[in-house]
Amino acid sequence: MILHCTWWICGIKVKTQPLFFSRNLSPIIISGVESSMAMGDKHNHKDNKELQPLLVFGPPTIFPIFEAQNSHTYRFLKAFSSQFPLHQFLTEQKVDPSSIQVILCNPIQKIPADVIRLLPSLRIIVTSSAGTDHIDLVECSRHNIQVVSAAADHAGDVAEMAVGLLLDVMGKISAADRYVRKWGPSMPLNLSFGSKLKGKRVGIVGLGKIGTAVAKRLEAFDCRIMYNSRNQKPLVSYPFYSNVVELAGNSDVLVLCCPLNEQTRHITNREVMLALGKDGFIVNVGRGALIDEKELVQCLMEGEIGGAGLDVFENEPIVPNELFALDNVVLSPHASSFTSDGFTETCKLAAEALQVFFSSN
Amino acid sequence: MILHCTWWICGIKVKTQPLFFSRNLSPIIISGVESSMAMGDKHNHKDNKELQPLLVFGPPTIFPIFEAQNSHTYRFLKAFSSQFPLHQFLTEQKVDPSSIQVILCNPIQKIPADVIRLLPSLRIIVTSSAGTDHIDLVECSRHNIQVVSAAADHAGDVAEMAVGLLLDVMGKISAADRYVRKWGPSMPLNLSFGSKLKGKRVGIVGLGKIGTAVAKRLEAFDCRIMYNSRNQKPLVSYPFYSNVVELAGNSDVLVLCCPLNEQTRHITNREVMLALGKDGFIVNVGRGALIDEKELVQCLMEGEIGGAGLDVFENEPIVPNELFALDNVVLSPHASSFTSDGFTETCKLAAEALQVFFSSN
Repeated sequence: MILHCTWWICGIKVKTQPLFFSRNLSPIIISGVESSMAMGDKHNHKDNKELQPLLVFGPPTIFPIFEAQNSHTYRFLKAFSSQFPLHQFLTEQKVDPSSIQVILCNPIQKIPADVIRLLPSLRIIVTSSAGTDHIDLVECSRHNIQVVSAAADHAGDVAEMAVGLLLDVMGKISAADRYVRKWGPSMPLNLSFGSKLKGKRVGIVGLGKIGTAVAKRLEAFDCRIMYNSRNQKPLVSYPFYSNVVELAGNSDVLVLCCPLNEQTRHITNREVMLALGKDGFIVNVGRGALIDEKELVQCLMEGEIGGAGLDVFENEPIVPNELFALDNVVLSPHASSFTSDGFTETCKLAAEALQVFFSSN
Repeated sequence: MILHCTWWICGIKVKTQPLFFSRNLSPIIISGVESSMAMGDKHNHKDNKELQPLLVFGPPTIFPIFEAQNSHTYRFLKAFSSQFPLHQFLTEQKVDPSSIQVILCNPIQKIPADVIRLLPSLRIIVTSSAGTDHIDLVECSRHNIQVVSAAADHAGDVAEMAVGLLLDVMGKISAADRYVRKWGPSMPLNLSFGSKLKGKRVGIVGLGKIGTAVAKRLEAFDCRIMYNSRNQKPLVSYPFYSNVVELAGNSDVLVLCCPLNEQTRHITNREVMLALGKDGFIVNVGRGALIDEKELVQCLMEGEIGGAGLDVFENEPIVPNELFALDNVVLSPHASSFTSDGFTETCKLAAEALQVFFSSN
């Protein structure tokens, strides 16, 4: 099945598969932005077979533009467009697995050990995401494979999304917007009042680049910042809590910004949510599985927490149905880095990473 | 016609008329929170006739709680509950117009010269809003009537709404939330990418308390602030533009925070919007008529500006129908001070203003 979604990317209308939906849908052929090669242009360029092969395994959102910009340099092997397993796809394409040095991917498509083992010459994986939890890093390390995030400046974008979701869920902006659109002047205003952010105690879980960017922005709203992370940071003056339940008990808001790993999976469980309390808010811009989503849904429905702003979900692209009817939640389709500026930057960083790699190998 | 809308105010479920809808709907009897007097309580208190009369002319949102808290002190004359003109209402209530010293009101219900002239002893008007453009200030000044805003700390709330609307419209948060709720995993993602706020040039129109609070918050997003106001402020280092078209031409975002008066009515006209340009955003947390709304609707529909976050409208509670179908606009029902904390504070400030007035008169 070929399924097209229309997107505007850098002013160019393309049909492609959005990042958020790249996991569970059928394979997709990128067709909206055709590369100059595909369009049969007559510029001088190397024969397709001479180009560096680049395995695109789960297309990053940047891919259509990236392909158009780099079609003279790379031969794109679009594994995501095939219904078959990788080895069969490569056979079909008459590509020797040992010729593949590079994978380009998105944060949804997993790169497990068996894929890595299939490609004996694999040297670098470039992902369009800040997080790398979708890649088997242990296997990469074993084979001396570089993992490069082409997401150098996503921290600012993600922090903007975190603050935007927080202001939205606390101020009930999306809920009110829905009501105004639905009802106009006869709107039955049965929304509760919003809460002001000013002066609130914000517990940040994971004070890396994103968490620090969130803290900087929230300080301007006179919030009191505190944090949890693997270790206390010697140069940071915000109060540190080694225990997330204790952090939640002392916070009005929890913002989840940490990476997902075995230590952080379900770091926000029911106990944490009950400690945060009925007037407390959660924002998740990390990964869905940082929260026990079943318990989150229960807590939101029962009013055990005040509300949540969620950019990520445990089983993307599936969002629990129960949330659709709630006004105390704002739902975002893993879109924190979906800005045209961030997109252009990611595209450039991915190209640079590959250029550096190929020029030194 | 009696019309009830359900609100949660300070944890108490009340039925009342929301601020935003107090202008064009039929008269309303507040009934959800009954005052202890109305409930026939048996505490010792003065006879109703001995209480200070307080004319409630357009009920502030705080009214139900304010009434419950102050029913032993004041006799509330609910002009808004009558279908008749003020003089007829007072006759019906057997109230001598010259006994009225105080009006309590909201920012929507106008207090024109003829109302002021009808009340020869009127000494103070307490409004729950920061703005006072709904009150005939010239007439008040002529009769030496104090106008008191019980909105001391709304600047922070309004600034939060401004930043929230800006992050929302630029990041397409409400639009994406609507799509996720409507479509779930089969969402046809035909939303365009958002824009990042970081580094944007923000022109603030009106650098008073609210504008300054907006600037402080946006500086934390690495925005470059510039402003327009009646006069350049000697202690402010942000670039000053005496001309709004020129400010718009040098800005990516315009935030309108100034009061509404004859000089500022339609200060954002088509020329300003065209100067701001196709990638520009407007946020209005001042008053609806600061923008030529007809032109705004046209510019939004034609893509002459990138988007708008609107907390106020020219003919509230009417929101132009054309906006309901647009994804590049966020619509908020004049709700910037609708926070439970701000509500409690306004209630307290109004009570204090009246206490000071009556104890010194």
